[in-house]
Amino acid sequence: MALKVYGIPMSTATACVLTCLVEKGVEYELVLVDLSKGEHKSPPFLSKNPFGQIPAMEDGTVSLFESRAITGYVAHKYRGTGTDLFRHDKLEEAAMVGVWIEVESQQFSPPMCTIIYQYFITHFHGKTPDQSIIDENLKKLGAVLDVYEARLTNSKFLACNSFTLADLHHLPYIYYLMKTPWADLISSRPHVKAWWEDISARPAFVKVAQGLTLDALINK
Amino acid sequence: MALKVYGIPMSTATACVLTCLVEKGVEYELVLVDLSKGEHKSPPFLSKNPFGQIPAMEDGTVSLFESRAITGYVAHKYRGTGTDLFRHDKLEEAAMVGVWIEVESQQFSPPMCTIIYQYFITHFHGKTPDQSIIDENLKKLGAVLDVYEARLTNSKFLACNSFTLADLHHLPYIYYLMKTPWADLISSRPHVKAWWEDISARPAFVKVAQGLTLDALINK
Repeated sequence: MALKVYGIPMSTATACVLTCLVEKGVEYELVLVDLSKGEHKSPPFLSKNPFGQIPAMEDGTVSLFESRAITGYVAHKYRGTGTDLFRHDKLEEAAMVGVWIEVESQQFSPPMCTIIYQYFITHFHGKTPDQSIIDENLKKLGAVLDVYEARLTNSKFLACNSFTLADLHHLPYIYYLMKTPWADLISSRPHVKAWWEDISARPAFVKVAQGLTLDALINK
Repeated sequence: MALKVYGIPMSTATACVLTCLVEKGVEYELVLVDLSKGEHKSPPFLSKNPFGQIPAMEDGTVSLFESRAITGYVAHKYRGTGTDLFRHDKLEEAAMVGVWIEVESQQFSPPMCTIIYQYFITHFHGKTPDQSIIDENLKKLGAVLDVYEARLTNSKFLACNSFTLADLHHLPYIYYLMKTPWADLISSRPHVKAWWEDISARPAFVKVAQGLTLDALINK
């Protein structure tokens, strides 16, 4: 029985999980959750994630939620197939994967998600984005990307010289940022730009990115 | 050479790392970082964590930052000694440890840290806490703890029936919450209360909690 992912293709967190599965060569079935009908806040889905957020995943008897927990599980369980996303056999590199996964989660994601929410989601709901919130978070994100620029001057990828889960977790977010007026946050930093061009060209993400269509929705 | 932790005993994130090390029976040296002098924002420390936050850790040639990355590293590297904080040999339990570590990080921590910052840190800096921010986050934290109450009705600990890293990461935060006027967020939920009383009585945390003295500072 194929592993089931519950989510939608345009969701950044769902796209992280799907990219991870494609990198590992693991077959899956995407079960769509209709957010417009509030399915994520209703009992059948709430038994999969009591916090009412996509994505969730079922792999046989194992039922998981929180996208980073799901990608970690997939990277560990299927360590023998596809891309080695965790550098399991190299203690020091694995430690750095852990560090940069946390950097994405704690430093990069809060300002990035706020910008994407304000620009795409507020817009989508027919409201006007709050430019002062966007500006404050562009400043925070810029400071984080300054650290990335220094890091990527000495390392081909964030954790080490191989592509790992730490890089993968950034993909859908930067993909959407590049569709906003603030793409220069990436393109003005040469090493960050080269890293982004490299990781976003990976076949697994090129495939998953076809579903990242938030921008098409607001441009209707 | 003993493993070195850079931080201060009253910091919640430092205390998480120390509790993990004591649970694992790993010897360490705590190297104090003088935040009042801005040591965490100065070059020697910035080479350990470019984001200028405590704690950081050095274990031989491995240098790490981000507290959850450090505890994960310690739990994996020293899996054979002390408390089994990751349930390595049980795939399904290990998956749940991953899920509930992420729940702490993404659902519990943002409102909890905001409340602690407003109540203790703002106060400590001689400013008045913003009650509207506290109220908004008490509401969010209450909703998260409702999910915990349901979970802990069916499971002795968050991830499974054993104490794991997922429980451990909550300790210093709830310890400080119990020193605020909102301790009833925990004590009004019977299963959350029993869980808190159980995990906070563990000898490793009792030892580390002696350094959690933010409340003494503001009551001077």
